[in-house]
Amino acid sequence: MTEPLRLGIAGLGTVGVGVVKIVRQKANLLAARTGRPVVITAVSARSRDKDRGVSLTDYAWEDDPVALAQRDDVDVFVELMGGHEGSAKDATEAAITAGKDVVTANKALLAIHGQALAEQAEANGCVIRFEAAVAGGIPVIKSLTEGLAGNEITRVMGVMNGTCNYILTRMQDAGLPYDEVFAEADALGYLEADPNLDVGGIDAGHKLSLLSSIAFGTKVAFDGVELEGIQRISIEDINQAEDLGYRIKLLGVAQLTGRGLEQRMSPCLVPADSPLGQLKGGTNMVVLEGDAVEQVVLRGPGAGEGPTASAVMGDICDVARGLRLSTFGVPAKELEEAKPATSNSPAPYYVRLELLDRPGAMAKLASALGDAGVSIDRMRQSQHDGTEAPVLIVTHKTQRSALQDALEALKGSDVLASDPVALRIETV
Amino acid sequence: MTEPLRLGIAGLGTVGVGVVKIVRQKANLLAARTGRPVVITAVSARSRDKDRGVSLTDYAWEDDPVALAQRDDVDVFVELMGGHEGSAKDATEAAITAGKDVVTANKALLAIHGQALAEQAEANGCVIRFEAAVAGGIPVIKSLTEGLAGNEITRVMGVMNGTCNYILTRMQDAGLPYDEVFAEADALGYLEADPNLDVGGIDAGHKLSLLSSIAFGTKVAFDGVELEGIQRISIEDINQAEDLGYRIKLLGVAQLTGRGLEQRMSPCLVPADSPLGQLKGGTNMVVLEGDAVEQVVLRGPGAGEGPTASAVMGDICDVARGLRLSTFGVPAKELEEAKPATSNSPAPYYVRLELLDRPGAMAKLASALGDAGVSIDRMRQSQHDGTEAPVLIVTHKTQRSALQDALEALKGSDVLASDPVALRIETV
Ligand SMILES: NC(=O)c1ccc[n+]([C@@H]2O[C@H](COP(=O)([O-])OP(=O)(O)OC[C@H]3O[C@@H](n4cnc5c(N)ncnc54)[C@H](OP(=O)(O)O)[C@@H]3O)[C@@H](O)[C@H]2O)c1
Ligand SMILES: NC(=O)c1ccc[n+]([C@@H]2O[C@H](COP(=O)([O-])OP(=O)(O)OC[C@H]3O[C@@H](n4cnc5c(N)ncnc54)[C@H](OP(=O)(O)O)[C@@H]3O)[C@@H](O)[C@H]2O)c1
Repeated sequence: MTEPLRLGIAGLGTVGVGVVKIVRQKANLLAARTGRPVVITAVSARSRDKDRGVSLTDYAWEDDPVALAQRDDVDVFVELMGGHEGSAKDATEAAITAGKDVVTANKALLAIHGQALAEQAEANGCVIRFEAAVAGGIPVIKSLTEGLAGNEITRVMGVMNGTCNYILTRMQDAGLPYDEVFAEADALGYLEADPNLDVGGIDAGHKLSLLSSIAFGTKVAFDGVELEGIQRISIEDINQAEDLGYRIKLLGVAQLTGRGLEQRMSPCLVPADSPLGQLKGGTNMVVLEGDAVEQVVLRGPGAGEGPTASAVMGDICDVARGLRLSTFGVPAKELEEAKPATSNSPAPYYVRLELLDRPGAMAKLASALGDAGVSIDRMRQSQHDGTEAPVLIVTHKTQRSALQDALEALKGSDVLASDPVALRIETV
Repeated sequence: MTEPLRLGIAGLGTVGVGVVKIVRQKANLLAARTGRPVVITAVSARSRDKDRGVSLTDYAWEDDPVALAQRDDVDVFVELMGGHEGSAKDATEAAITAGKDVVTANKALLAIHGQALAEQAEANGCVIRFEAAVAGGIPVIKSLTEGLAGNEITRVMGVMNGTCNYILTRMQDAGLPYDEVFAEADALGYLEADPNLDVGGIDAGHKLSLLSSIAFGTKVAFDGVELEGIQRISIEDINQAEDLGYRIKLLGVAQLTGRGLEQRMSPCLVPADSPLGQLKGGTNMVVLEGDAVEQVVLRGPGAGEGPTASAVMGDICDVARGLRLSTFGVPAKELEEAKPATSNSPAPYYVRLELLDRPGAMAKLASALGDAGVSIDRMRQSQHDGTEAPVLIVTHKTQRSALQDALEALKGSDVLASDPVALRIETV
């Protein structure tokens, strides 16, 4: 196979330019590894005039990414525009209709339309690859889909939004409140145009839903991801957690239980000395657990020009080498409907609450927990300044619903000075 | 493609039995993922009568693995016997001659004969896969060959012998000397029949040479791996290193320098709080560095029935899915001859020496280092009991040859009570 593989690249931002650079600078290496030249024939972006720091004169220009996707001289449509509607979706569909393979970094598109696109692609004999969409430079899609194909996957976990992890570690290291670090991150350009995609856990939730589909052979069910952002994490909780030997991470967890598929993306406590607990700044980490392999942990940069382009190039090289695979590891038509279950697998919880300084308050707390069947592993009552007495509790393993019952009962009993904070402690 | 993929499995020990169990227990999952049934048609081991805890009555039995490899009803020869000569080599060659694909867990075979086997396989249109041969359950061969195919690899590092890491962490945790922990490991069955394969660094060196070949596009050059085992690591060095903020690991490092390909497998100091420093017991870790991806760290079980079988099954699923690749990522005939270079990239070193309690001894030490151009970052002289004064030095970055010159000069000057210990501090 010495015919060149011809790429049409739509989107010349951070990732697109990174890909163009690699294709230009490593022609020989790529040809040696894939057995054929890998070339760019056409590109597209919004503005033709922008200086992108890389020469584009060798490539045809298309204003319209749909037209790019349909060009006869394009074998692989490389979608690096982003967004789950509009051009990214239209052009990806057009590419598949025209029988082109697709490589994309777009988690939003696949989390929302992945099932339909995969069915359409497989009906047309095309592949869709999306390594860059999850955890940046880490080859996690490949590891899960191919490397662990002999496993029944039991659990997938990950810290997959670098911005959130940056905010949480920066709060801890600098002792700064959420709002201040959020403003810093914004000024540094770390946040998406809609910051809720980051701090609300949506971006990481998109990624988790893609991993779930591969892990459990179910249709992508982003709707079934329980989302909770990091906005309500206070520096006090970060410090208290550290004192107890934990760190707070925006952690995604997916597991198949008797009740259905649990997928949650939420701030959790993890042991400070675990690989997840040690993770700092924008680095990502994914934990894959299978019945045979036990546990594999992958760590690497979750974003940025080089790492993301590396993942895109891995997919392009696979296509050039003729490696062809169903989008989610099994044919899309055979994926089962996911049965989303609310997350109720038992876990210890961290609870912080402020009791009013009233006679019997502690007794009410104890009986509210006891009545709901929640037992206490560790409890600390910090010194209090007169009216409110902050209480920290680490529970034994309990179902979330039981803890919620207890906290509801407590809220009705007039002993709380503010809403209690309850965070899951994930066993890693 | 709904024809079944037919496996002939030679070797029914730890790994072989693990593979048989997965193929039997997960027929549906494997068929769904690969698009075709994966079945075993024939098996071979030394003793036919041994109870292996799994039923083999459905499979043809061959006493001779060469005959197994040649059977018409075998598509993939799965070599799980071990050893770099004899049956493993003969049967692998026979399989390739008969046009079969090969999946193996045998690092020794590939480190010694990989180049010849790969050339033969590629001439015959066969693939050789060997994920299980390096770092057990971690999909590192796949990550490096495929996932990072768009990178120029700059460095590969790894802790890839679980037994050595078990011995070193156990020495530290229990405060026990090497000989005692070695005897423990032996009693627990952790050591190879020839323990030098483990503690001499040979097994890990085999693995490093395979990673190097893929990373740098060079022919496997196990001969070019500088090997140093853990036998001379004392509990004193482990403790002193810890005091200085480091841990000692049997670390493999491969990098391409202007002088040639450096490959070394040796006990090194790594920062105690780095992912490598945190690694305990039999767990393996591989660090892959590329110009685009920066750094990816993979962590997982390096051995055992389930994890190793998981890796073998990943390869088998790839073959079933029709993913075909050159053994070392580029066609074997195009691999360049490796130019082994002695490891001389500058690094800080840890040096422990015992000075005789003589006037001028410290001055001689200082001038020996100074004359060789080795400068001192930190120095500690512990309290001494009369005759010998242990001195600990952390040097600034220096070439190993310079440090060796200094230590040679010192040895000639009659101030040392014993041979000095010098260990590289690897930047991770
Ligand atoms: N950045 C990362 O580190 C990272 C990591 C993982 C995944 N991703 C994903 O990769 C994709 C691209 O991200 P990015 O950071 O490279 O984005 P970016 O820097 O904002 O670049 C987007 C590019 O798409 C072009 N574009 C947008 N709408 C278009 C349209 N309608 N027609 C033609 N071109 C259009 C833009 O053109 P102009 O330049 O002319 O405006 C720009 O070149 C997204 O899906 C993102 O989620 C990014
Ligand atoms: N164990 C691990 O965790 C691990 C991890 C990574 C890689 N590996 C590699 O995997 C391979 C197998 O390891 P293992 O631990 O499974 O070894 P093992 O438990 O010693 O099993 C070896 C098997 O090969 C059979 N065998 C040996 N010589 C044979 C011959 N001449 N003809 C037919 N059968 C023969 C033995 O037969 P009998 O049972 O009848 O004696 C036995 O079933 C080795 O290359 C090893 O380096 C192992």
